[in-house]
Amino acid sequence: MLTRVDHIGIACTDLNQAIQFHRNAYGFEVCYREINDEQGVDEAMLRINGTDDGHATYLQLLSPTRPNSPVGKFLASRGEGVHHIAFGTPDVDAAAAAFLDRGMRVLFTPPRPAAMGSRATFLHPSECGGVLVELVTHT
Amino acid sequence: MLTRVDHIGIACTDLNQAIQFHRNAYGFEVCYREINDEQGVDEAMLRINGTDDGHATYLQLLSPTRPNSPVGKFLASRGEGVHHIAFGTPDVDAAAAAFLDRGMRVLFTPPRPAAMGSRATFLHPSECGGVLVELVTHT
Repeated sequence: MLTRVDHIGIACTDLNQAIQFHRNAYGFEVCYREINDEQGVDEAMLRINGTDDGHATYLQLLSPTRPNSPVGKFLASRGEGVHHIAFGTPDVDAAAAAFLDRGMRVLFTPPRPAAMGSRATFLHPSECGGVLVELVTHT
Repeated sequence: MLTRVDHIGIACTDLNQAIQFHRNAYGFEVCYREINDEQGVDEAMLRINGTDDGHATYLQLLSPTRPNSPVGKFLASRGEGVHHIAFGTPDVDAAAAAFLDRGMRVLFTPPRPAAMGSRATFLHPSECGGVLVELVTHT
């Protein structure tokens, strides 16, 4: 059902500075940028490697466009660092339904539009060992 | 130089419980277990997907064997959750030297034995956007 690590979401205060650091230190390049007004986030995707399900693994750099956004609140309470991890699935609707069937909390039903034209939902960290888990399908 | 996301390290208080959760919720299976006495950690590797550099991406579940170990201290201060992310490289010695040349802190020089017969070192989170970064080469 979950066929890859799709991305690691990293919260940062200054997106351009974070992009520059990841380029200079690691050689990772931005392949996609987007502002998601609904989530209050300015984001950049950096492709790291291809995966054997025909997709890829990315770093997703996230900076808030407003302090009261989810990423803004995360930065205020935890500081910069890993915000969430995302698993790729061929069918995020079926995956969300399966987790609901197991009695787990699924944050967005139905899944919402996310980075690079994908659709995604989240599992709550209190039920996932302290990890905010995203489930994502690229269309 | 860095060719894949090798693994995501997740700190947990009870390793067997965490293994069971990851199997039941996500279908991920343990492919390797080890106690690293030097690091004071009991760990399990769960293979998620293959990568296009001929290796794979894993989750690494980590529980402390003693409270004053690095993972024990992390759990005491931050609670369960993502502890570090690891990038795979064909030559961890060369990668470590390159980061040292750029004036960055490299925690173990030379790199130390790590999971599954690998050798690894770390970059400090204060210089990497709040992320503890491991560099790893599988031999």
